[in-house]
Amino acid sequence: MEKRTEINKVGEFGLIEQITKNFTNQNKSTVVGVGDDAAVMDFGGIYSLLSTDMLVEGVHFDLSYMPIQHLGYKAVSVNVSDIAAMNGIPQQIVVSLALSNRFSVEAVEKLYEGIAFACKDFEVDLVGGDTTSSPSGLIISISVTGEVAKDKVALRSKVEQGDIICATGDLGGAYIGLQVLEREKQVFLSNPEMQPDLKKYPYITGRQLKPKARMDIIHELAELKVQPKAMIDISDGLASELYHLASQSKVGFFIYEDKLPIDKQTYDTAVEFKIDPITCVMNGGEDYELLFSISQDDFEKLKTHPDIHFIGYATEKEKGINLVTKSQNVVPIQAQGWDHFKAGN
Amino acid sequence: MEKRTEINKVGEFGLIEQITKNFTNQNKSTVVGVGDDAAVMDFGGIYSLLSTDMLVEGVHFDLSYMPIQHLGYKAVSVNVSDIAAMNGIPQQIVVSLALSNRFSVEAVEKLYEGIAFACKDFEVDLVGGDTTSSPSGLIISISVTGEVAKDKVALRSKVEQGDIICATGDLGGAYIGLQVLEREKQVFLSNPEMQPDLKKYPYITGRQLKPKARMDIIHELAELKVQPKAMIDISDGLASELYHLASQSKVGFFIYEDKLPIDKQTYDTAVEFKIDPITCVMNGGEDYELLFSISQDDFEKLKTHPDIHFIGYATEKEKGINLVTKSQNVVPIQAQGWDHFKAGN
Repeated sequence: MEKRTEINKVGEFGLIEQITKNFTNQNKSTVVGVGDDAAVMDFGGIYSLLSTDMLVEGVHFDLSYMPIQHLGYKAVSVNVSDIAAMNGIPQQIVVSLALSNRFSVEAVEKLYEGIAFACKDFEVDLVGGDTTSSPSGLIISISVTGEVAKDKVALRSKVEQGDIICATGDLGGAYIGLQVLEREKQVFLSNPEMQPDLKKYPYITGRQLKPKARMDIIHELAELKVQPKAMIDISDGLASELYHLASQSKVGFFIYEDKLPIDKQTYDTAVEFKIDPITCVMNGGEDYELLFSISQDDFEKLKTHPDIHFIGYATEKEKGINLVTKSQNVVPIQAQGWDHFKAGN
Repeated sequence: MEKRTEINKVGEFGLIEQITKNFTNQNKSTVVGVGDDAAVMDFGGIYSLLSTDMLVEGVHFDLSYMPIQHLGYKAVSVNVSDIAAMNGIPQQIVVSLALSNRFSVEAVEKLYEGIAFACKDFEVDLVGGDTTSSPSGLIISISVTGEVAKDKVALRSKVEQGDIICATGDLGGAYIGLQVLEREKQVFLSNPEMQPDLKKYPYITGRQLKPKARMDIIHELAELKVQPKAMIDISDGLASELYHLASQSKVGFFIYEDKLPIDKQTYDTAVEFKIDPITCVMNGGEDYELLFSISQDDFEKLKTHPDIHFIGYATEKEKGINLVTKSQNVVPIQAQGWDHFKAGN
C-alpha cells in the first residue's frame, strides 16, 4: 500500500520544508528564495521583493461577519505586511480570485472597493490577476512586489546577540476579536432575533476584520535613520515569529512578560473569555504588527516612540526562547502558532 | 432589494473590466498594469514582468485523469507562457496551495515534483509561497516574474496594419484531448471494469495534461533577430486571442482557414467526436501556443521555420476579424472563448 501521511501530522512548516528541499535557484537575480517574508531579487541597484498570500473562505474568513470590502482590504494588507517585514516599500499586486456562483458582480465590486482602498492606503498598483469560478466558496490569492535598497533589507537571519527585540502596536487583539465574532455568530445562529452585539468590542473586532500593515513604521524607521537588523511580521502569533527569528539567526531570546504590549480591551475580553491574555499575545495570530531587532546603539532614537515596544533581547542560541514572567520566573516559550491544518483553526 | 447581477451574465472579461476601471497606477515603476499577459515594471535598465494564474479543482482540472505531477508542471507552464507572451524570460515563481484533507503529504510531494520539473525545464526559481487548508478540493495559484529588454517587450497593442500574423505549433489539440479524457472517464464511471483507453490518443491527451510553454520559440526568435511586434499566448482559443489583439491594437484581421495548423490526431479525433476541427482551433482553449505579429520585412527570416505558421495578416479595424474559408468565403470570427463562468466549462 502507498504511504499516506496526513498533512496535519507534519504541519504547514514541515510540509513546506519537505517540498522545498529539492529546489535550487538557477537565476543570478534570485538573492533570497523560500524562507523569509518575501523573496529577494536583484535587478541592479535595488532588491526587488516578491511575496504571496492566499485567503480561503471557511479557513481564513467567514463572510457571515466579515464585510466583503474588509476582506479585500485585508487580503492586500496581509501581503503588504510581508513587504514591510523586509523593510521594503510595496509596489504592485496581482489578484487571483476563485468564486462560486453564490457571488454576484456586486459582491465582487465590493471586494474590489476594499482592494482599491488598500491600494491607495499602501500606495500599491493593481497590475493584473486571474478570475475564475470555484465549485464552492471564495478564494483570494494576492502576490505583491516591493523594493528595498540593498543595504536596507531586513532578513530573518540577521538578529545578533545583544540586539534589542522590538514589537509594534499591541498584540493578541485580532485573536480575541475573532473569539467575539465567533461567539456572536453562534448567538445569532441559535436565535436570529438577536442581533450581534459588536459595539462593545470595536477595537478588537476591527483588529480582526481590518488589520493595517505597518508601513507607517517602515517610513518612520527610515526617517529616524534606524536600520532594523532582522524583521518579521506577526501573522501567526509572537511565539511562532520568535521561533522563526531564533532558528534563522541562530540566537536565543529573553522576552519580558511585563513589556508585552496588550490593549486594555484585548486584556479585559480575554479575561471575560477565560483565556490567558499572554496566550493571546503568544499564540493568537493575525495582528500584522512588526517584530524586529535593533542594535543597542539605536535604542536612543526609538526610546520615546509611542508605538514601538522593547520586549526583550537576543542571547546565545543555547539559552533557547524564554519568557521572563512578572514574578521573575524564566519559562521556555512554545511555538504553537496558527496551524491551518490543525483542527479548530 | 439589492441589485444582483450573475457573473456569467457579464463574463470574465466584463467582470475584469468592471472591477479594474477605478484603479489608477501610482508608482513610477509600473509601466503596463492590467490588460496584457503580464504586468510590466521598470526597475532601471530592463522591464520586470509579473503575471499570475490560478487553477481550481473541478474547474480547470480533474484529478481522476490528471496525474498530480502533471498538474504541478502545467500550473508552472501556464504561468511561464504568460511571460513568453511578453517576449520575456521567466525568473521566479511563488506558489500558493489550498488543500483539503483528502490530500496527503505524498500527494503534495508529487505535485511539487511536477513543479520542480517545470522549474528546471523553464529555468525558473521557486522563491516562496503559501500553503493552507481548503474546505474542499485543491487550488493552486502561481505568480511568476520575468524580465525583458525594454526594446524587446511584445505588447498586445502593437499589431500594425500589414503585419503578418503567426501561430506556433498546432491548435485545438488540448481541447479535443479533454473530450477524450472526459469520455473515457464516463466509460470508467459506468463500468469500472473498463480501463480508460488513452493509448490511441497520446498526442492530444498530452496536449491537455502537460502543455509546454513555448520558451523555445522565444529563444529562437531572439537568435534569428526577429522582434515579435505584438504577442499573446493562446490559452482561451485562437478566436479569443485574435479578439484581444484586434481590440488593443485597433486593427482587423484576415485569417486563412487553410493556413491554420491542426495536427492529424486532432483533426481525426474531432471528426470522430463530430466536432468541426476549426471550432476546436478557434474556440478550444489551453494549447499555450504563441500568437504574434511580425513586420513583413521579417518574413524571410522565419519562412522556413518548421513550427511557425503564417495564418493571416492585419488590416484596418473597420474590416473586423475574418476567416477566409477554404472555399474563399469571408466569414466573421466570433470570439467565444473559454468562459469559466459559463456552464459546461
